[in-house]
Amino acid sequence: MKMIRNLAILTAALVAATALAQAAPKKPPQPTTMRDLVAASKPGDWRPLDPERTVYLDLSAGRVVIELAPAFAPRHVANILKLSRAHWYDGLAIVRLQDNFVAQLGDPLNSKPEVGDKRLPPEFTRSAADLPFYRLKDQDTYAPEVGYSNGMPVARSAADGEAWPVHCYGMVGVGRDNDPATAIGAELYVVIGHSPRQLDRNVAIVGRVVWGLELLSSLPRGTGDLGFYEPEQRVPIQSVRVAADVPAAERLPLEVMRTDLPIFQKLVELRRNRKDAWYKVPAGRIDVCNVPVPVRERPAERKKG
Amino acid sequence: MKMIRNLAILTAALVAATALAQAAPKKPPQPTTMRDLVAASKPGDWRPLDPERTVYLDLSAGRVVIELAPAFAPRHVANILKLSRAHWYDGLAIVRLQDNFVAQLGDPLNSKPEVGDKRLPPEFTRSAADLPFYRLKDQDTYAPEVGYSNGMPVARSAADGEAWPVHCYGMVGVGRDNDPATAIGAELYVVIGHSPRQLDRNVAIVGRVVWGLELLSSLPRGTGDLGFYEPEQRVPIQSVRVAADVPAAERLPLEVMRTDLPIFQKLVELRRNRKDAWYKVPAGRIDVCNVPVPVRERPAERKKG
Repeated sequence: MKMIRNLAILTAALVAATALAQAAPKKPPQPTTMRDLVAASKPGDWRPLDPERTVYLDLSAGRVVIELAPAFAPRHVANILKLSRAHWYDGLAIVRLQDNFVAQLGDPLNSKPEVGDKRLPPEFTRSAADLPFYRLKDQDTYAPEVGYSNGMPVARSAADGEAWPVHCYGMVGVGRDNDPATAIGAELYVVIGHSPRQLDRNVAIVGRVVWGLELLSSLPRGTGDLGFYEPEQRVPIQSVRVAADVPAAERLPLEVMRTDLPIFQKLVELRRNRKDAWYKVPAGRIDVCNVPVPVRERPAERKKG
Repeated sequence: MKMIRNLAILTAALVAATALAQAAPKKPPQPTTMRDLVAASKPGDWRPLDPERTVYLDLSAGRVVIELAPAFAPRHVANILKLSRAHWYDGLAIVRLQDNFVAQLGDPLNSKPEVGDKRLPPEFTRSAADLPFYRLKDQDTYAPEVGYSNGMPVARSAADGEAWPVHCYGMVGVGRDNDPATAIGAELYVVIGHSPRQLDRNVAIVGRVVWGLELLSSLPRGTGDLGFYEPEQRVPIQSVRVAADVPAAERLPLEVMRTDLPIFQKLVELRRNRKDAWYKVPAGRIDVCNVPVPVRERPAERKKG
C-alpha cells in the first residue's frame, strides 16, 4: 500500500517516456491515473458549486459542505433551505454516529420546527425522463442501471421509468419515522460506511457532502443503541448556512468535475482498469459507489491565497 | 431514521400478535429482524474464536480483535503469528488513515523485521475446490459468484476454479510495494470505507476485524498525501498478541455466528427483504459486503460478568 511512492516512480517513468518520444511528432501522453487526468483537465471540465443550493454545516472542528440536489427532492431541498435560513439547525447536534452506517443530525429533544413544512409527500424516486444520465456499463446488484447525473450517483429503471439517487459514501438523506410524510429535513443523515443500498427508494436523498466529510466520519461512535449518542457525546452544530447568504469572501471556492463530459468517462475508465504499476489484476469493472467525483478549490482562488 | 423506536413498536406488535395467537396451537413467531433472529438462536449456531488464529491489537483506546483466515493466505498468516510472537509490532504505529479507504499500521521508519519471512509468494487467490461456500443468489458487480466461507466474504469463479476474499468493511490485508513478494505482513491495512473491491486479487487478505473496528474507523484522517499521518499524528501500537498467548482470563470471550448453517441463510434473507415497518420498498437483494456476520460475547461469560 505504498502507492505514494508508486506515483513518484510512475511520474518519473512518464517523464522518461515523454523525453524518449520527443523525436516523434508530438502527442501528449494519455493520463494513466486520476491524478494525471485532473492535472491535465481544462477549466471547462469543472463547474462551480451553486451558492443557492450549497449549505455549510459548521462544527467547532470545521466546515462540512453539502451540495443539495433539488433535481431529486425539490420540496425537501426547499424546506432545508428554509430551515437553514430560519437558523433552525443552529445549536442542534450530531446525535448519532453508527459505525459503518450514518452520522445523523437533529434536535436531541425532538422538537419540531415552527417554520417550514410540517409534512411532505415522499420524494424517493423521480421520473427518469429528461434526467441527464451517464450510464456505467457494469452490472449493479441493486438496480437495472446505475450511473451519474450532475455529480450524483443515480439508479434508473427503464421498466418503470423511474430514477433515484443511490446511497453512496457521503450522500445526505432525510430521516423519518415509519410514516414517510414525517421526513421534512429537520433531521438529516450522512452515509459514512459501506453503501447502505437497502435504503434506496425508502428515503429522500437531498444531496451529498463534497467537502469536510472526514469531520463527520472520524467522530467517535455512539455508545447508545444503533449508535445514538449519550447526551454528553453529542457534537454541537454551530450553524447551518446557505452559501449564498455568506459573504462571498467567506465562502469556500469549490468546483466539481462535470460528470456529463468526456473527462468523466475517462476517469471512470481509469478507475475500472487501474494502470499504475501497483495493480496486478485490474478489476475491469466498477461499482457506482467506487467512482470518485473530484472536488477541489478553484485554481484561480488557490493562486490568490 | 428513528429505527430504535420502530424496534420498540415492532416488539410490542409481536407481543400482541403472540398474545392473540395463544388459542391456536403454539408455533413460535418467525423472527422478522436480525435482532429477533439472534435472540432466537441456539448455542450451536455460534462458534468461539480460535485463540490460535486470533490476534489482539491493543491501542491506548482499547482492543481491536482480528480473526485470521489461514484458509486463504496460510503463509502470510503464519508469518503474522510469528511477528506477533516476536513482539515485532509492539511500539509501531497506525501510520495512515485515508478517509473512505483504509487504516494502515506499520513501522514509520520502514525497517524490516529480523524474524520471519523476508519475501513471500503471492496468496491473492486459492483453489475453490473443497472450500466451504454459501453462495448468495444476487449478482455481484465484480465477481461471477460471491458468498461466505467460515465467516469470510468470498468471491468465486467457476471458470478458473479460484476463490478469494473480498474487500468488505473490516477486512485486513497485507500492504506491499509494487513487487508482490514484498508483502510479508510487516504492514497491514484495515478497510474502513466503502468496499475497495478493485484491490481484490491484488493483495493477500489475512482476516477480518471482529471487534473494536470503531477504534480504527473513528481515528482522525491523515493530512499527508493518501491519508498518511504526519509524524505527530501517528497512533502508537501498545502490542499485538496472539490470543492463545494471553492468559485465558484476559481474553475476550467472543463467538461468531456460523455462516454454514440455516440461521445464516435466514439472516441473509431478512437482510435482503427488510420486514420492519420502517421499510417501504424492500431491496429484494443484497451486496456481499452488506451482510453482517454477528459477533458477540459468549452469553455464559456475560452472565459471569
